[in-house]
Amino acid sequence: MSHVRAGSYRDLVSGANRRFMDAFKRQHAADLAALYTTDGQLLPAHSDVVSGRPAIEKFWQAVMTAGIAEVLLETSEADGASDQAWEVGSYTLKSQDGTTADRGKYVVIWQRAGDTWQLHRDIWTTSLPA
Amino acid sequence: MSHVRAGSYRDLVSGANRRFMDAFKRQHAADLAALYTTDGQLLPAHSDVVSGRPAIEKFWQAVMTAGIAEVLLETSEADGASDQAWEVGSYTLKSQDGTTADRGKYVVIWQRAGDTWQLHRDIWTTSLPA
Repeated sequence: MSHVRAGSYRDLVSGANRRFMDAFKRQHAADLAALYTTDGQLLPAHSDVVSGRPAIEKFWQAVMTAGIAEVLLETSEADGASDQAWEVGSYTLKSQDGTTADRGKYVVIWQRAGDTWQLHRDIWTTSLPA
Repeated sequence: MSHVRAGSYRDLVSGANRRFMDAFKRQHAADLAALYTTDGQLLPAHSDVVSGRPAIEKFWQAVMTAGIAEVLLETSEADGASDQAWEVGSYTLKSQDGTTADRGKYVVIWQRAGDTWQLHRDIWTTSLPA
């Protein structure tokens, strides 16, 4: 685990975010859900809390089916201690024709599971006008 | 600081949230802003990031002026390590006539400043339909 201790939290979540973007680009909601802890939660707007991998998979599948082809994530800051980390970043959702469908910012609480970091709590808000 | 180490993170943020609710009920946006770190940030929907106490005060003042009389916060979970903590909770905004103007969930990243805990990153999403 020395590579984990050596890396900054920013590097650690960046690696996990690359897997997130890749799974989304492959439109593979199950792979995406597997990046969350087994008791992971999404906290989306206009929705109750979405809890657990099966519900998370269903949520992201619906986003893909609605025409979102790609998610771009950019970490603004990340910090943590021991097995937990928090990250603030910005996101962009791309439609199949390459246009920006949404953009905003997010906070993710990360939890370490062995050698990997998993999304534990995931909340985001659009920066587009109402 | 032994009382800080002795308390659970849940207790620590509950105390800070009581001060938040109290300042809001007194409609005192400056007291509310003072509960954030000097480089604190709000990440509201339909808005860019709101950074620093003067901007945070202005944001909450606008919410008060729009007719929100009270904010109720309920912690669902809180955890942390050393000088940082994260919290997930639910909120209710009450109008002056006592009706619920909004309700949803939030994530706050807390930072310890001496004996007190301050809100460092604050993001929330409505649970009401779009």
